[in-house]
Amino acid sequence: MTMKLNCDLGESFGMWKMGLDEQVMPHIDMANIACGFHAGDADVMANTLALAKQHNVTVGAHPSYPDKQGFGRRSMAMSAQELINCLHYQIAAIDGMAAVHGLTLNYVKPHGALYNDMMRDERILESVMRAVASYPKSLKLMILATNQADKHKEHASALNLELILEAFADRQYTDEGTLVPRNLAGSVHDKPALIAQVKQLIKHGTVTTRSGQQLTLNADSLCVHGDNEAGIALIQEIKTLCQQA
Amino acid sequence: MTMKLNCDLGESFGMWKMGLDEQVMPHIDMANIACGFHAGDADVMANTLALAKQHNVTVGAHPSYPDKQGFGRRSMAMSAQELINCLHYQIAAIDGMAAVHGLTLNYVKPHGALYNDMMRDERILESVMRAVASYPKSLKLMILATNQADKHKEHASALNLELILEAFADRQYTDEGTLVPRNLAGSVHDKPALIAQVKQLIKHGTVTTRSGQQLTLNADSLCVHGDNEAGIALIQEIKTLCQQA
Amino acid sequence: MTMKLNCDLGESFGMWKMGLDEQVMPHIDMANIACGFHAGDADVMANTLALAKQHNVTVGAHPSYPDKQGFGRRSMAMSAQELINCLHYQIAAIDGMAAVHGLTLNYVKPHGALYNDMMRDERILESVMRAVASYPKSLKLMILATNQADKHKEHASALNLELILEAFADRQYTDEGTLVPRNLAGSVHDKPALIAQVKQLIKHGTVTTRSGQQLTLNADSLCVHGDNEAGIALIQEIKTLCQQA
Amino acid sequence: MTMKLNCDLGESFGMWKMGLDEQVMPHIDMANIACGFHAGDADVMANTLALAKQHNVTVGAHPSYPDKQGFGRRSMAMSAQELINCLHYQIAAIDGMAAVHGLTLNYVKPHGALYNDMMRDERILESVMRAVASYPKSLKLMILATNQADKHKEHASALNLELILEAFADRQYTDEGTLVPRNLAGSVHDKPALIAQVKQLIKHGTVTTRSGQQLTLNADSLCVHGDNEAGIALIQEIKTLCQQA
Repeated sequence: MTMKLNCDLGESFGMWKMGLDEQVMPHIDMANIACGFHAGDADVMANTLALAKQHNVTVGAHPSYPDKQGFGRRSMAMSAQELINCLHYQIAAIDGMAAVHGLTLNYVKPHGALYNDMMRDERILESVMRAVASYPKSLKLMILATNQADKHKEHASALNLELILEAFADRQYTDEGTLVPRNLAGSVHDKPALIAQVKQLIKHGTVTTRSGQQLTLNADSLCVHGDNEAGIALIQEIKTLCQQA
Repeated sequence: MTMKLNCDLGESFGMWKMGLDEQVMPHIDMANIACGFHAGDADVMANTLALAKQHNVTVGAHPSYPDKQGFGRRSMAMSAQELINCLHYQIAAIDGMAAVHGLTLNYVKPHGALYNDMMRDERILESVMRAVASYPKSLKLMILATNQADKHKEHASALNLELILEAFADRQYTDEGTLVPRNLAGSVHDKPALIAQVKQLIKHGTVTTRSGQQLTLNADSLCVHGDNEAGIALIQEIKTLCQQA
Repeated sequence: MTMKLNCDLGESFGMWKMGLDEQVMPHIDMANIACGFHAGDADVMANTLALAKQHNVTVGAHPSYPDKQGFGRRSMAMSAQELINCLHYQIAAIDGMAAVHGLTLNYVKPHGALYNDMMRDERILESVMRAVASYPKSLKLMILATNQADKHKEHASALNLELILEAFADRQYTDEGTLVPRNLAGSVHDKPALIAQVKQLIKHGTVTTRSGQQLTLNADSLCVHGDNEAGIALIQEIKTLCQQA
Repeated sequence: MTMKLNCDLGESFGMWKMGLDEQVMPHIDMANIACGFHAGDADVMANTLALAKQHNVTVGAHPSYPDKQGFGRRSMAMSAQELINCLHYQIAAIDGMAAVHGLTLNYVKPHGALYNDMMRDERILESVMRAVASYPKSLKLMILATNQADKHKEHASALNLELILEAFADRQYTDEGTLVPRNLAGSVHDKPALIAQVKQLIKHGTVTTRSGQQLTLNADSLCVHGDNEAGIALIQEIKTLCQQA
């Protein structure tokens, strides 16, 4: 199976532009579309969905804590029920707007602090899983491929939920399969290291961790970034690698 | 056909309560549920939908201009496309959340300034109609029953859209079938005048306008208000009148 | 010195009313006025300030995390600089609006989760103190009177900042002088226990903690609540006790 | 007196960047700083004020209708009192934050739809004037220099308010001194026409209108834009022209 490329898109807001969505969309397989809570608005969502339709890209919801100023990057102490309702609202909004554009929402990938929180706190992951599983359409949940993947899959399976495991092309890994924090030297790969990590993921399903160990990830998808021209060129290169595999 | 009672519900927000939703819901037929733009939030919407489910009440979207501080009562100069996207977003949010609660969204009733604007400006009505008609589920649009109802129905029909015409129990009418502005004396009926207007609407399908004329309205639904205990008692009385008809 | 009564006011928002501000204001000494981030808006603030002016009540800023849906009751992971800027903005807004009404802002009392967070995390308290101390007007900071009061005063003094220590009439205390969490039985006093606690605070400057110890608090102000008619009656009773002291 | 250059700054929001503020600031005289309602937030405001301080630029409030998604470009039907409170809040926020940075707020220039609305509707202009005049610091109000300038000055004078009249370098004028709408061909000058208009404004205090008439404007300030590199170069050129005058 070919490794799918996913990218966060639709993160403009009102007059503020972010990301080169029109240049990214032709090269990716899965678009994580912001739902108006950390980024995006009804107009941005409509435009992003139209672009995904045009390029035949699978669409996913990219919901977040409700914090536009903080771009969803600040943890918020929400109760389980608040979080579930908040996710249902965002998933519903993008689901219905996708339908307006003739698209079927396929999956959910939490954004920013919510993504990080669910990967480190099982109670939050439980709420996220319950939110996606209780939505009355078949939606997958995208989470980080770590050394806990089997446990995560069991957890999801008990809720009748299918997971998509994603890996990062540009980030260094810990031995547990989590991302090395950005503030540490070497945490973000330069281009040669990034290309090497992609090749290793495609060929062997592993990454070489910060400590030098080989860690099996079995990722279904690779997360890429299209913030600037260099990012677009990298996406194209990564795509070629995936297609050659 | 029995006259249906509709009421604006789910207009609390966060810690702020508004309306006696739990007391109103058992007595009405159609709940116009706020979608988070003038009132409501994901938690309020979830609770209101659960309440509607419990009492077997038909649910409609009650979308608004994006203005919580102004409760959607201040006109905003949105472009046609902005308005359509803004409505799709809100309709989608409540549609998907209704599905979570095992409910099927049935109709859309615009709120506040948007409702007034669409009744006085055909371009705005056109945008609202197009928004509802282009949503990929069969949804009706609720508008004010006026002397323009035939024209409105033709307009809607051309878009393959079905209208629900509503009348107000408590408001005095102009000869054109619009509501007499609240700032004019006599614009809001006292209880005897209200009951008389309901009876006339049920029996003859007409109202007596401010000038004394008989105006045919042929309304499908009556809008009622459950802000306080007196309002709840009135709703019960009106419901009895409808059921006796 | 007479014990001052402080109360959170101006917590309505748009069409949503909260608190009996008009009934509370005549009986209190210090009004903690919401600044538009957890509650309040420009109109509510203007009305609340006018009311404070009319009753000659000292006005304080009641700033919060930016979270209206959560009423400022959900912790948010803000950086020190984000928090300081966020506080400066809110303090400035109420300071200038107070000046419009001929009032001088006197103090700052953080709200909700921010209040709790600063009492349990010295880094957050440090940010709050720096925000208030760096505002170019002489403002006091109101915090909870605990067994750490001397340390808090030293900390503040080093920043050239004066503290107001507050106690709660209705809440049971731990031996450390923090409030017993609301979810524990006995954490919120009934009326006799409340009155007894007020008398003890006024007469002896102490409270009897949950474990039965006598804890010295030396509070400058008592926090009271005016959410309903019973609360208003209690405020009047407490005020009489304070004046008799 | 040298013609002052003013520019809208601080219009980033959260993670979204807008405008080349750091490149613009060294070349202008007056910074119109967004107050968090159409753009800007506490962090952006703090950074923009620090930049203005560094370059010794006069700071003004740039308040707006409360509409971040619409960037303050959509008219909103606010009552006079709502508008005045809304302006007081924004002015107060930037005033106090300016003080934190050792700056004194000097003037107010309404933004976007509010600016346009006040120039075409005297009731809105009256509200804006009253808001600025009633703020308890001496603040000037910046409005468009038109053929109604004398009347506007009289109006302001009656409120003890001083006006700053601004002209636009890049926009074609009507005979009344209002800006030709952007959707009309020729409404935005190319560089030679812009330079010619600036020279004429500096030398003769006039513009040549769309119909070819000479219109006296007597502007105190020129509005310039720093959205991109070409804009920065133009600002430098215009500044040189002003200094040579």
